[in-house]
Amino acid sequence: MQTVSVAVIPGDGIGIETVQAARRLLDRLAELDGGIKFAYTEFPWGCAYYTQHGEMAPKDFLSTLRSFETIMLGAVGYPGVPDHVSLWGLLLPIRRGFEQYVNMRPVRILRGVTSPLRGRNPGDVNFVVIRENTEGEYSSMGGRLHTGFPHEVVVQNTVFTRLGTERVIRYAYRLAAKAPRKRLCGATKSNGINWAMPFWDEVFNQIGETEFPEVERWLTHIDALAANFVLKPDVYDVVVASNLFGDILTDLGGAVMGSIGMAPSANINPERKYPSMFEPVHGSAPDIAGKGIANPVGQIWSSSMMLDHLGRQDLGEAVMTAVEDVLEEGRVRTPDLGGRSTTNEMVDAIIARLEARFR
Amino acid sequence: MQTVSVAVIPGDGIGIETVQAARRLLDRLAELDGGIKFAYTEFPWGCAYYTQHGEMAPKDFLSTLRSFETIMLGAVGYPGVPDHVSLWGLLLPIRRGFEQYVNMRPVRILRGVTSPLRGRNPGDVNFVVIRENTEGEYSSMGGRLHTGFPHEVVVQNTVFTRLGTERVIRYAYRLAAKAPRKRLCGATKSNGINWAMPFWDEVFNQIGETEFPEVERWLTHIDALAANFVLKPDVYDVVVASNLFGDILTDLGGAVMGSIGMAPSANINPERKYPSMFEPVHGSAPDIAGKGIANPVGQIWSSSMMLDHLGRQDLGEAVMTAVEDVLEEGRVRTPDLGGRSTTNEMVDAIIARLEARFR
Ligand SMILES: CC(C)[C@H](C(=O)O)[C@@H](O)C(=O)O
Ligand SMILES: CC(C)[C@H](C(=O)O)[C@@H](O)C(=O)O
Repeated sequence: MQTVSVAVIPGDGIGIETVQAARRLLDRLAELDGGIKFAYTEFPWGCAYYTQHGEMAPKDFLSTLRSFETIMLGAVGYPGVPDHVSLWGLLLPIRRGFEQYVNMRPVRILRGVTSPLRGRNPGDVNFVVIRENTEGEYSSMGGRLHTGFPHEVVVQNTVFTRLGTERVIRYAYRLAAKAPRKRLCGATKSNGINWAMPFWDEVFNQIGETEFPEVERWLTHIDALAANFVLKPDVYDVVVASNLFGDILTDLGGAVMGSIGMAPSANINPERKYPSMFEPVHGSAPDIAGKGIANPVGQIWSSSMMLDHLGRQDLGEAVMTAVEDVLEEGRVRTPDLGGRSTTNEMVDAIIARLEARFR
Repeated sequence: MQTVSVAVIPGDGIGIETVQAARRLLDRLAELDGGIKFAYTEFPWGCAYYTQHGEMAPKDFLSTLRSFETIMLGAVGYPGVPDHVSLWGLLLPIRRGFEQYVNMRPVRILRGVTSPLRGRNPGDVNFVVIRENTEGEYSSMGGRLHTGFPHEVVVQNTVFTRLGTERVIRYAYRLAAKAPRKRLCGATKSNGINWAMPFWDEVFNQIGETEFPEVERWLTHIDALAANFVLKPDVYDVVVASNLFGDILTDLGGAVMGSIGMAPSANINPERKYPSMFEPVHGSAPDIAGKGIANPVGQIWSSSMMLDHLGRQDLGEAVMTAVEDVLEEGRVRTPDLGGRSTTNEMVDAIIARLEARFR
């Protein structure tokens, strides 16, 4: 019996609802399988905690989390707490503190889902974005001078290190080398951002040339690449992008998939020195929080990636097959997909499919 | 008779073809109208010039351009010349040197065009992106330390000044105040980029609150905003964005419009102290350059914006009506729109419409 210790941070808004949903599914799956068990410890950190304690989590939260095998996160952020406080107080320090330098975000039109793109059907779009997750444009380095005066100047440093750039690009090449068409596209903007991005391009080409000559590689400026996600999303296997560019591309990818409520992500520390973290791409969605109608697929798909990471690809696949079966049947759908079902009804339907499979 | 002095920089690749096309159209229009005349001076600057002279343009090119009323630019950049050389040697210095701090980029599905978005038809999507055009992420400030060593660090500074931020945001509010629904959306990323973007948000809210209380305003993170361009592009009147975010959003907008070959832009110095510059959003497109099949609409639409800027909105509108009539008739279309026509055939068709109108 494999017992997995899971730190659970539901966070804010719909995060609380989708995490609850995914836990229910994981527990039933574990029962059905019989070979795995999840030992959860839940941490009530986030914006509610902040309003009581003046911080998003206790000061030692990283050392608390460190002993867990894996982390499940819902969503962080809520009106009343400035975003740059809520995120820099919890989510971003975890990504950095645990060297989760790979943020893996699949873009795939699931069976049964209508993409907002004309003529793009399930199976047509299926690739992975590897987002750098620890440095780049989210450096937290910068400052303001002459605050409030007409001559005020604000500087933010984008910082790329060779180590940080090489490790994520190398990871992306490894993945691309296993992809059907062995293709890797790098997101750049070396025409406008004249120090950081030419460096990125250099590393991208160096590693490709010397270590992965069998991978077809090309660089595309982020503006054109965003347009291509709409115009020809079928040409990609793996896309590697800096922190900010990956952030933008994956929300856009979520849109192409039919709803950002379905996009998953895995924050991975490939060396497994620290726990990895699994969270949907969507935010806390204050507008629908508390209504029980959030789409649980983003969280569930993220949990399926967690199962992959734990060496149980068989279970990860079983979960996604069940999800796609439910979507394809089309009877149970949350409002973002044009239906009227609740989060719980959706999870029930997915669990029923899993039960049928294990029966 | 209004005689307009136009500095023409065809630039590289298809820029040469689309500028030629737009000039032909403007000349015929001037003949038909009888009240305006264009006096062109063409400058052969760009990557071909660079291969001969080791620079994109003569050192004094800004003072040469300065005496013109307006500038028409095709596209800059070509394989063999690194992008950060070609752009920083011509396009970007013009935007900066002439304080063209407003980059206005309409996003509209033209009559007769099929958007790649399911169920979005002409008339459904019609808004303007105001992109900051002189500072921000394209600062050119930064550097590299320990080049090539494992401990290399590369820094790029994003720089926002209060002056630069206020002036573009104020311009956007003015435009929004005249829009049908009086709406302004600001693109931000204050949750991840923790110095520059909270400052941007502050200015956005300050100006809205004190100077434009009648305008409905809201901020959206760039990741969600990119997704919204696909999921609900109908909610926008005016979007204001930093240099990089505006760049990404407008290529995406071009995709939503059906082809980036059609997206126009105006680099405006609102104070009219310096010439403004009109150029399509698309690049030099080496893959189709020289074939005579580039879509001229981006360049022609940009010329229509030039006519607006010169106080001849009547002519600007006449041009766009002719363009839309041709697209709607559907007989003449360049390959990017699924047709087989040449650039010249398309221009001929548009000119024929204009002639019919003036007859
Ligand atoms: C060529 C490049 C520097 C330019 C930009 O990013 O500004 C282009 O993409 C544009 O949108 O005008
Ligand atoms: C909340 C925010 C800081 C975060 C990010 O930009 O990384 C989110 O958008 C994401 O994509 O995980």
